[in-house]
Amino acid sequence: MNASEFLVRMAEIEVDPARLDEYRAAVNEEIEASVRSEPGVIALYAVQLKDNPVHIRIFEIYASKAAYEAHLETPHFRKYKAATQGMVKSLRLFDTVPIVLGAKAK
Amino acid sequence: MNASEFLVRMAEIEVDPARLDEYRAAVNEEIEASVRSEPGVIALYAVQLKDNPVHIRIFEIYASKAAYEAHLETPHFRKYKAATQGMVKSLRLFDTVPIVLGAKAK
Repeated sequence: MNASEFLVRMAEIEVDPARLDEYRAAVNEEIEASVRSEPGVIALYAVQLKDNPVHIRIFEIYASKAAYEAHLETPHFRKYKAATQGMVKSLRLFDTVPIVLGAKAK
Repeated sequence: MNASEFLVRMAEIEVDPARLDEYRAAVNEEIEASVRSEPGVIALYAVQLKDNPVHIRIFEIYASKAAYEAHLETPHFRKYKAATQGMVKSLRLFDTVPIVLGAKAK
């Protein structure tokens, strides 16, 4: 794996407050399945903003553009997208240019 | 280490365009030193938004609140803060509540 090929993006999502628990469960299931079953999913971190918990941020690291495109076609991602469509009030995606991805070896 | 104690935050930084290369070098040095020398720094990911590269996002995972507070006192973090003070046009910090931090074992 070559870190210079990594594709890193961020999602900013606003969730319907009435469906926040459902959304949390859905994204949790989707991320667990992705990390477990997709070699090209390096990391998916989903957090809520503490001051405004309906605002979700997902920080996403894929091994390559091809790994990202494969991720979009997986059954677990398609299930997540379909299940959460009515829970998500807005979604913004940001492509990024990594400066440094520093992480402790496990 | 107990992931339920992790402290996760995000920084949104706007950098003076004339000093972007300098800023990139400074944050790179700071993150390399932090990950190498601080047991409580789990991950620090710094990226530029592709459509607007003066906008930096840093996604930060610390082992605990104490680890984060210790990080702020390190010589490399203090050097970074002092060196970049004149390069940073705005800085917003967001505390978060993690939903799921999914990452491949290395």
